[in-house]
Amino acid sequence: MTAPIRVTVWNEFWHENPLHWEAVQRSWMSHGYSEESAIEETEGVRKIYPDGIHEAIAAPLREQGFSVRTATLDEPEHGLSEAVLNETDVLIWWGHVVHEKVDDAIAERVYRRIVDEGMGFIALHWGAGSKVFKKLMGTSCSVTPIVSGAPERLWIIEPAHPIARGLETSFVIPQTEIYGEPFDIPAPDSIVFISSWPSGEVCRSGCCFQRGRGRVFFFRPGHETYPIYYQREAQQVIANAVEWAARSS
Amino acid sequence: MTAPIRVTVWNEFWHENPLHWEAVQRSWMSHGYSEESAIEETEGVRKIYPDGIHEAIAAPLREQGFSVRTATLDEPEHGLSEAVLNETDVLIWWGHVVHEKVDDAIAERVYRRIVDEGMGFIALHWGAGSKVFKKLMGTSCSVTPIVSGAPERLWIIEPAHPIARGLETSFVIPQTEIYGEPFDIPAPDSIVFISSWPSGEVCRSGCCFQRGRGRVFFFRPGHETYPIYYQREAQQVIANAVEWAARSS
Amino acid sequence: MTAPIRVTVWNEFWHENPLHWEAVQRSWMSHGYSEESAIEETEGVRKIYPDGIHEAIAAPLREQGFSVRTATLDEPEHGLSEAVLNETDVLIWWGHVVHEKVDDAIAERVYRRIVDEGMGFIALHWGAGSKVFKKLMGTSCSVTPIVSGAPERLWIIEPAHPIARGLETSFVIPQTEIYGEPFDIPAPDSIVFISSWPSGEVCRSGCCFQRGRGRVFFFRPGHETYPIYYQREAQQVIANAVEWAARSS
Amino acid sequence: MTAPIRVTVWNEFWHENPLHWEAVQRSWMSHGYSEESAIEETEGVRKIYPDGIHEAIAAPLREQGFSVRTATLDEPEHGLSEAVLNETDVLIWWGHVVHEKVDDAIAERVYRRIVDEGMGFIALHWGAGSKVFKKLMGTSCSVTPIVSGAPERLWIIEPAHPIARGLETSFVIPQTEIYGEPFDIPAPDSIVFISSWPSGEVCRSGCCFQRGRGRVFFFRPGHETYPIYYQREAQQVIANAVEWAARSS
Repeated sequence: MTAPIRVTVWNEFWHENPLHWEAVQRSWMSHGYSEESAIEETEGVRKIYPDGIHEAIAAPLREQGFSVRTATLDEPEHGLSEAVLNETDVLIWWGHVVHEKVDDAIAERVYRRIVDEGMGFIALHWGAGSKVFKKLMGTSCSVTPIVSGAPERLWIIEPAHPIARGLETSFVIPQTEIYGEPFDIPAPDSIVFISSWPSGEVCRSGCCFQRGRGRVFFFRPGHETYPIYYQREAQQVIANAVEWAARSS
Repeated sequence: MTAPIRVTVWNEFWHENPLHWEAVQRSWMSHGYSEESAIEETEGVRKIYPDGIHEAIAAPLREQGFSVRTATLDEPEHGLSEAVLNETDVLIWWGHVVHEKVDDAIAERVYRRIVDEGMGFIALHWGAGSKVFKKLMGTSCSVTPIVSGAPERLWIIEPAHPIARGLETSFVIPQTEIYGEPFDIPAPDSIVFISSWPSGEVCRSGCCFQRGRGRVFFFRPGHETYPIYYQREAQQVIANAVEWAARSS
Repeated sequence: MTAPIRVTVWNEFWHENPLHWEAVQRSWMSHGYSEESAIEETEGVRKIYPDGIHEAIAAPLREQGFSVRTATLDEPEHGLSEAVLNETDVLIWWGHVVHEKVDDAIAERVYRRIVDEGMGFIALHWGAGSKVFKKLMGTSCSVTPIVSGAPERLWIIEPAHPIARGLETSFVIPQTEIYGEPFDIPAPDSIVFISSWPSGEVCRSGCCFQRGRGRVFFFRPGHETYPIYYQREAQQVIANAVEWAARSS
Repeated sequence: MTAPIRVTVWNEFWHENPLHWEAVQRSWMSHGYSEESAIEETEGVRKIYPDGIHEAIAAPLREQGFSVRTATLDEPEHGLSEAVLNETDVLIWWGHVVHEKVDDAIAERVYRRIVDEGMGFIALHWGAGSKVFKKLMGTSCSVTPIVSGAPERLWIIEPAHPIARGLETSFVIPQTEIYGEPFDIPAPDSIVFISSWPSGEVCRSGCCFQRGRGRVFFFRPGHETYPIYYQREAQQVIANAVEWAARSS
């Protein structure tokens, strides 16, 4: 019997946390929201992810037998102490609005674990803008985001890839934020998914990278205002990616 | 002063050639067309490409200063004698319904020129199903075609790639046949374009491959029933690709 | 408990088979050997691999719990009937002097299993010149072979790759035939090993390719006149590669 | 007539500069050199590159018609002002012992020019350890250096690559410092050269990377104590790489 893969799900945990609502609302208002709609949005997030996105990501992984803990920005060392990383095979990263609040030393520590020790790393959604992911890529990781609620169809480009296991040729996530190409990343080692939206945008939505000893996966879907991580296909992709990313360690 | 790049545009030349209309119509009828609509379709092709698709591809290349000749299936040796290949830096290939009529020895001759001598090769549209392209890929090259007349939006994935020169972030071809992923090719060395359609399909529509000494480019658009090769952007891509593919020789 | 991976080890089985010695000796003599040394060489091969190279490859895999059968050129359908392939997760291919005697239909059958069904395929040594491998690559696969008996040092280029598991940074195979670059293959998806020899040659000696649904691995060492497959490191690489190649199926 | 490509050759210019000899000698002594041999080494460098390595790199480029300027660490803004970068199509980087003295803001400025504006970047020798190159790669770029004076044989892996133009299948640099794999870089987009040494080491010695809009090339040879940049083949590679790297801008 093999020991279960040990996963740490990291979340900046601002949108879903009343302690940070004022800041989140101010941020949305600076992006053109009215105060009313900013408040509505915050409350919407909390309804969808009442315990935080990290718990929504962690629960189905636990059910599938992975050993899962969570960590958030506000915890000491952002919940990513050496002790925690020592017991982490794969780190899942969800962050959106406060990437800059992640301490450089902690980002460096996580980065080193990946490239030097082979910890797997999965960047979800705008985890692509995190310090760790950008450092791994060596590019800006810029993309064109469009808040729209439009449905996203993900196509499997490498049907035999382990991360595509158990999925149909394509599947739809009913409500999403669009990320339009060009997406400024190095050419991935493998592209597992490409997405499209009815308005015509496309995105390389599932991308694999070997960096040093570590396996890195980017999975695009996951906006905080939509219940994406409750959808079976998203959960399947994340579980597959955890197994894939753990293989180096 | 450098000598101009020498291009040979090959076309099977059946759809646009009255000598083969009966065969083309029979083929369409076997795909579910009524006799009436099959006849109408054939006449439509001829109206769009009265001198053959090869001439529509060749004309703008000539205007840009390339040295261009054409070749078609019905010519002796399919117009691809050793003498012609000796004077060809880049071969453009358009074929759709009669790939099997291309003589194995000629396909082998073209293939050898590419991998052994560094002749560039550009497969347009269902040129992806040609003997030469399939041999270069080592895979089935199967894809899901959907005749639809739907608009295709092509996104530039590698903005600095020479084949993307002079193009906007994305452009639309108003009427196209859809090719839906999965498209069974090896991972390209570079993906220059990804397409989407309103019905949700996506395709890696501009793909670069090094094979032996030769540079190979696949460009998806080009169905015979739509005036795609008269569009500026398609012409620009083909001209860019010719320059790119000629660099090895 | 998972069922063991089912491996078929294919060998052309000429060098080690007295029925074919005359032919093998003639072949060696045509490459410049004297009759005496050709005979000596044949006898040497038989001493090293008395039951055929396939048995030397199969034995350590059996010990590690894989379910292993063998197949050879002289068997009906070269031992590669549909029934056998139905029960094969990974096919290992060793061939050297009689690639052309492999029936085109059988080569096509094996090829289809790989790209359409996801059977893993491992080409050992001059298995790179086999019909199946060349068809998968789409290139000539030519390389410069030098019979020398020189030691080959293999370096691990991707230390975290599953095929490098259990190996040191580099290891030496004491006696080998050299394959000098350029080796005419498409750029591999991953390069796991690069070899060098004291006379200066290098070779990409462990190369991974995804082709359709199938995983393909090339492992360079393995000349019939040296006891390479009895060496622990070579056995480790082959076992690792079997596990890696089986993952698609 | 096209305007000539504008090249800036950057050199930290310590080994060859009497102002920094004491520091260089101290550094060598900390690596186990006696004072005597450290002094001898410094004088040796100056004999080989009396005007600095940058001038040895710049001179043959000038002869071939490129428009070349140089820049060094001690100049204001390390010689890399916005005005200079505005007039630079390709930046060549040679650095070895004082990477840390490069100002973060200047490194960032250079990095941005590459990924955002498409300036070409060529890292020579231990330019692989520079801030800019490491940031582009997202990995440690660590390698095993062995000061040896041993001859390095470089093999061309992609014979049709523009950077291999005008070169034989392999060539030898008589005296070199060894860089042994594993070399911790992401899988390159193309590998143009692989090196070997008589002691058995290998290295991916010519590697191409697209990063954002910029083309990046790593060329391994170039230790300060050997006259490598006076050798025709090294000069040819650098000139070819300049032409290749300039194509994005």
